[in-house]
Amino acid sequence: MINTETLARAIAQGRGAEPADLVIKDVGLLDIVSGDVTTTDIAMCGDRIVGTYETYNGEAEIDGRGLFAVPGFIDTHLHVESSLVTPAEFDRCVLPHGVTTAICDPHEIANVLGVDGIRYFLDASETTIMDLRVQLSSCVPSSDFETSGARLTVADLLPFRDHPQVIGLAEFMNFPGVLAADDPEVLDKLAAFQDGHIDGHAPLLRGRDLNGYLAAGIATDHETTSAAEAREKLRKGMVILIREGSVSKDLQALAEVLDENTSSFMCLCTDDRNPLDIAEQGHLDYMIRTLIDLGRPLHHVYRAATWSAARAFGLSDRGLIAPGRRADIVLVEDLEACAVRTVISAGRMVNDDLFAERREIAPVGLDSVKTQTMSASDFEIAGAAGSVPVIGVEPGRIITAHRQMHVASDGNRRMADAGRDIAKVAVVSRYEANDNIGRGFVTGFGLKRGAIASSVAHDAHNICVIGVDDDDMAVAVNRLTEIGGGFVVASGGRVVAELALPLAGLMSLGSFESVRADLVPLREAARSLGCTLEEPFLQVAFLALPVIPHLKITDHGMFDVDRLTLVDT
Amino acid sequence: MINTETLARAIAQGRGAEPADLVIKDVGLLDIVSGDVTTTDIAMCGDRIVGTYETYNGEAEIDGRGLFAVPGFIDTHLHVESSLVTPAEFDRCVLPHGVTTAICDPHEIANVLGVDGIRYFLDASETTIMDLRVQLSSCVPSSDFETSGARLTVADLLPFRDHPQVIGLAEFMNFPGVLAADDPEVLDKLAAFQDGHIDGHAPLLRGRDLNGYLAAGIATDHETTSAAEAREKLRKGMVILIREGSVSKDLQALAEVLDENTSSFMCLCTDDRNPLDIAEQGHLDYMIRTLIDLGRPLHHVYRAATWSAARAFGLSDRGLIAPGRRADIVLVEDLEACAVRTVISAGRMVNDDLFAERREIAPVGLDSVKTQTMSASDFEIAGAAGSVPVIGVEPGRIITAHRQMHVASDGNRRMADAGRDIAKVAVVSRYEANDNIGRGFVTGFGLKRGAIASSVAHDAHNICVIGVDDDDMAVAVNRLTEIGGGFVVASGGRVVAELALPLAGLMSLGSFESVRADLVPLREAARSLGCTLEEPFLQVAFLALPVIPHLKITDHGMFDVDRLTLVDT
Repeated sequence: MINTETLARAIAQGRGAEPADLVIKDVGLLDIVSGDVTTTDIAMCGDRIVGTYETYNGEAEIDGRGLFAVPGFIDTHLHVESSLVTPAEFDRCVLPHGVTTAICDPHEIANVLGVDGIRYFLDASETTIMDLRVQLSSCVPSSDFETSGARLTVADLLPFRDHPQVIGLAEFMNFPGVLAADDPEVLDKLAAFQDGHIDGHAPLLRGRDLNGYLAAGIATDHETTSAAEAREKLRKGMVILIREGSVSKDLQALAEVLDENTSSFMCLCTDDRNPLDIAEQGHLDYMIRTLIDLGRPLHHVYRAATWSAARAFGLSDRGLIAPGRRADIVLVEDLEACAVRTVISAGRMVNDDLFAERREIAPVGLDSVKTQTMSASDFEIAGAAGSVPVIGVEPGRIITAHRQMHVASDGNRRMADAGRDIAKVAVVSRYEANDNIGRGFVTGFGLKRGAIASSVAHDAHNICVIGVDDDDMAVAVNRLTEIGGGFVVASGGRVVAELALPLAGLMSLGSFESVRADLVPLREAARSLGCTLEEPFLQVAFLALPVIPHLKITDHGMFDVDRLTLVDT
Repeated sequence: MINTETLARAIAQGRGAEPADLVIKDVGLLDIVSGDVTTTDIAMCGDRIVGTYETYNGEAEIDGRGLFAVPGFIDTHLHVESSLVTPAEFDRCVLPHGVTTAICDPHEIANVLGVDGIRYFLDASETTIMDLRVQLSSCVPSSDFETSGARLTVADLLPFRDHPQVIGLAEFMNFPGVLAADDPEVLDKLAAFQDGHIDGHAPLLRGRDLNGYLAAGIATDHETTSAAEAREKLRKGMVILIREGSVSKDLQALAEVLDENTSSFMCLCTDDRNPLDIAEQGHLDYMIRTLIDLGRPLHHVYRAATWSAARAFGLSDRGLIAPGRRADIVLVEDLEACAVRTVISAGRMVNDDLFAERREIAPVGLDSVKTQTMSASDFEIAGAAGSVPVIGVEPGRIITAHRQMHVASDGNRRMADAGRDIAKVAVVSRYEANDNIGRGFVTGFGLKRGAIASSVAHDAHNICVIGVDDDDMAVAVNRLTEIGGGFVVASGGRVVAELALPLAGLMSLGSFESVRADLVPLREAARSLGCTLEEPFLQVAFLALPVIPHLKITDHGMFDVDRLTLVDT
């Protein structure tokens, strides 16, 4: 809470009775209400804007000539873990793109470490320069057909509900559970957060089922993929978060919906975005410039990225460049191109010095990958030749096909077949609870030799490995265990590329630049094995998610998502 | 908090798996997002909407054919006391106009009874059918130059801050105190409510002073009277509440500002509206139809009256007809005319039976007018003939002129002069603290004989009496004391018309219909004395408000508002 002395200073500086702490002089201020751009000064006192549309003197001044000021951007839904770096590195990577507030769901680490993972993010949120807000992961584990590191009940989440950085319940992915309305655990969670925010996850949900889901008090959705779906959800009162992640990309499809009528009811988010895409394309700045380029009205695009996001998530102190608001300001060289020059976060100029001042927090989950030492025989699949279910990977999609393909056998063991693009896939439990290994076949990777393994495997984050060589599969998994998790490419009995992600097996301890640098040879290594997919590790990461159609694999075995049942390999 | 059983029912009814509790069939639903009107069913479960844009069956059904459905209206700022009836009667009077939520400031009763007055409104809010929300009166008393019934400090207000019906701090009228930023009582109140809502009151405040006021965290304003002022406040992030009361009327001047860019940042309110105006013109329905008639875009007018109001005051559960929202629905026969046919409040059809079910609460402050018995001599003003300051009343305005006029004297006592429209005015302390009487002169009423007295006299609500006959002034004040407060017209030594307002001297114990009926002969009685003002009692009510320019009167005496000093009569 602000003290009276600070408040008195803010009022005095706003009136111009005292010099302001910081003033941006002569900047073109975009009014996201009217769309007007006016050259003016912006005065700040501490973390608060105290003056606009007037002339000010400041203890410190920024020359705003030739620049435009817009409110700080708000990413309304993302998993920091998907950036493969710590919250501190995420801060350093994304804040310079103008993202002054990020609302994250620590869903991945929560599946691995439970409440300790949520606590890690809340601790981190107290040290980042950006305002990192945390939603409480609502669906851990994602299903009962896999081994996960934790099971979060309402009793686990309630102690965090009133934490100042917490914004309600994160994406309620278990929409069949909501619609069934008979699972006490589901209903308890929904009931406990009725007075706060409940974030939605309602892919393709339409008609009366959508109504039932909304009747549960769920307010927002980032899983909308078509304009027609967005329009239905909007008129049913749902706020639409347009998503442009590294895998799921909805911006092109949804752009047409954003206009002067809808902009107060739409926001932007990235969900899952990796450091390479952030470097090559950008973050929310990329979404803003693309939407404007697609012809959406400029100030309504900025409104969606700022004020509408703040309103949808109850952040009434921000989203406008106006006296009394949090001093989150982005200076751009060009409004159409959203070319970010300078970012001010809570009244502080964002630069290396500011990041260097942050308190460090200790990493957690450094010893969270507990796999036994593997050998080739662990990946053998008993059985005669014949037709078996095969996961059909589709490039750039997390939905898989349920295929039936003929596999050969040496009499006792069914074999991968690189010539026909049939690889083995296995999910190895990384938790002490058991030594489960689920085994099956996958097609679509194009692998000619070797193996690819990852401890990022939504949502339970067991180890998922694909390969056409059992030895290499063992090498890859063993190496993953040694480095505490990450990505490994193995071939010819040795590791050819790797990225260690020892923080819960999900995040690097290194800089975002080093992670970005490591991803390039990793992709190349996968390609050198014959892999034809653009994003092999992202595709591996979604093979084990048993809530996405149609055929998946967990440490329990191959899983038919449509029938909610394990299938024999 | 909703229980899981109710939640499960809501989901099941929304999905159509069970009949809904209540369904409006085949109604034209206005989408305040897109502006589309679609014929559909609306399903409700208990107090919650659970289905739209689909077909439903209900345990009870309303035939919506030929009607249009819009979200319940939200009056964002008003003083129930100004309707002269109890909260229960206000409910019965205004809810049928479609006002399903009213955000009131119990400022008048708080000046008389202090926290007991606030508690009375909070108790009342638990019994009304409409959702009556209460803001905590921030500036009691309005000044130190008068006797009031209470002084509310932050310590008095804090115990109410987290009450479920409370929405932050009410209109912060003491804007000079905010700008001075040196009064600990002012700063303490502002600091204590930074995380909630702080409602503004910033008439004519512009430029850097406006910035200073906003820097204090004040969010909304209902005192804006010109379009240029509204546009400045909007671009400085302030939400504008367009007001159309019985005295202050800003709708015509502000209408032009409301469009598709601004509608998310504007709301409607009535501030002070009496039962006659409500009967003759309407309430928010009147404002809506007038704005549409003035050419403002229809769905943006309805948006301002509903969703924008809900957002501005943190009421995230309402403002849309959508699954999961509070079932506050207005059925109108005509969208342009906002002709209200049926109102549904939290899923209940509003009708006499529903009002009859309400629990009654005991009135408070029934013995709050403590004046000594008066005689004519109490209104004598000593002095010789000469030029004296005279309050110049202006029809329909609460601002008064500071005039100097010559008054005659019998040698010892200065005299009223009906022929030159100079009446006496006195403010008699109604509180036990003292027997103060402030005396002076007023012009503009046109009184030829008799006296008019009122215990409604903003903000301290001492007794204000004007008259050209000292005997009649005493008769009027004595009668007011007998009836516990209200309005009295006296002439020829007797009472010719009266309205008792014994609840804190502000509100009637009767029905709104009886109050409305009594106001007509009261006005006529005032007119029969020669009074030329359209609303004599409203004008009397603002003579004693020492924070409105230019010359006023309190129980301390005549008060020069511009110089903040008492003046001799």
